[in-house]
Amino acid sequence: MIETSENAFLGGRLTLRQPLKGYRAGVDPVLLAATIPAKSGQSVLELGCGVGTALFCLAMRVPELSLAAVEVQPTYAALARENAHANDIVADIREGDLATLPDDFRLRLFDHVIANPPYFDRTASSPAANEGREVAMGEGTALSVWVDVAARRLAPKGYATFIHRAERLPELLMHVGKKLGSIEILPLQARAGRDAGLVVLRARKGGRADFRLCAPVMMHEGARHETDGESYTPEIRSVLRDGAALAFGSNKK
Amino acid sequence: MIETSENAFLGGRLTLRQPLKGYRAGVDPVLLAATIPAKSGQSVLELGCGVGTALFCLAMRVPELSLAAVEVQPTYAALARENAHANDIVADIREGDLATLPDDFRLRLFDHVIANPPYFDRTASSPAANEGREVAMGEGTALSVWVDVAARRLAPKGYATFIHRAERLPELLMHVGKKLGSIEILPLQARAGRDAGLVVLRARKGGRADFRLCAPVMMHEGARHETDGESYTPEIRSVLRDGAALAFGSNKK
Repeated sequence: MIETSENAFLGGRLTLRQPLKGYRAGVDPVLLAATIPAKSGQSVLELGCGVGTALFCLAMRVPELSLAAVEVQPTYAALARENAHANDIVADIREGDLATLPDDFRLRLFDHVIANPPYFDRTASSPAANEGREVAMGEGTALSVWVDVAARRLAPKGYATFIHRAERLPELLMHVGKKLGSIEILPLQARAGRDAGLVVLRARKGGRADFRLCAPVMMHEGARHETDGESYTPEIRSVLRDGAALAFGSNKK
Repeated sequence: MIETSENAFLGGRLTLRQPLKGYRAGVDPVLLAATIPAKSGQSVLELGCGVGTALFCLAMRVPELSLAAVEVQPTYAALARENAHANDIVADIREGDLATLPDDFRLRLFDHVIANPPYFDRTASSPAANEGREVAMGEGTALSVWVDVAARRLAPKGYATFIHRAERLPELLMHVGKKLGSIEILPLQARAGRDAGLVVLRARKGGRADFRLCAPVMMHEGARHETDGESYTPEIRSVLRDGAALAFGSNKK
């Protein structure tokens, strides 16, 4: 029995139970959910859903989605199921390794596959003290496997969307470029003038459009961190508080 | 004998003769030159120098560089030599294919290798009517060769800098990632909110720093094209008019 806490997301629309210690969902899965171009009636598979933050945030924005997910850590998979129930969301959450999906998942094709892969390559960073945090943050499964599994499970013209550290972009692009097309990058900057800290990468099965590097989204107002208080830009605030969508730029040059 | 015109660059500091018809240098080589982190006394090799715009703009900003270049088109190589002489710049300009550099160039290592490769893959676009323009704009030599030659000619810790269309970034990253490290991307946006139109990619021989996606540089003021007049941002104007340097962001996240 592990200690958990209940946390409010999307201005209270969503309440998620997650472990007090170990990996705890921040804004990243909320941002990921905001970028998914899903329409009612479509199917979505999340690889490594944790307690379900991204998938359930998406469900709050887009009704009548068919939601499926795998999570390798039993504790998190169980909490994801509990969170779905507590928020009246129907989602097929399976405990298991994304590299070996359940047979019935492997028979299905999805309109969207989404993932927030571990940010740190375990081989290059010291393991986190907490086991749950280590599995969630440290890379047990190679990034190429995340991409390959996503590509295999996508329906024709389906979208794969990943959020990852900007430092990993070349590696992510290399793997995605072998399997998917119409790649679009949305950089996320903490503030104006800063390097991108995160990138959202979206690609399409069988897509043939030109690569797009979109204008970055600013997370915080101002050039420096001035206060400990709220400093999110209006765009990000509407995503985090109101569950608004986050667009991939103007598509103009 | 072909028709040429004299054009002023860097607010008149530099006057370059170039063909009236065919490829004519725009702002791109000037921007490339502005990003090169060269110091007096260092050596610079340009691959495909055209009439010498990038190399000579760099020479105006950084004195006492050892300048070398290859240009496959005889007309442009001859004009580059003429332009060097006319602007009192000492540069070793050779006519030839970058894939088969002159023997003495192949015996040298350079602190910087710079290039503004053709933007369009000839196999994917219809040839330009003008031969000179076609060779300059259409891709005769594969992008991988540009990267490989640059990497081979770099001294340890030397910098390769390329400017290219943003659409080609995944391909450019893939090739550069195999040969060089410490990759940094500076996106160039026409205006706020637009997709990046161009990217400057800088990488280092033997570099081991994290990949950086820098904050984009805006070329023009405002969100729309309002007038036919001057609309460059102050940052870009100082590059184009005063020969100022263009920095790769704040290196902060």
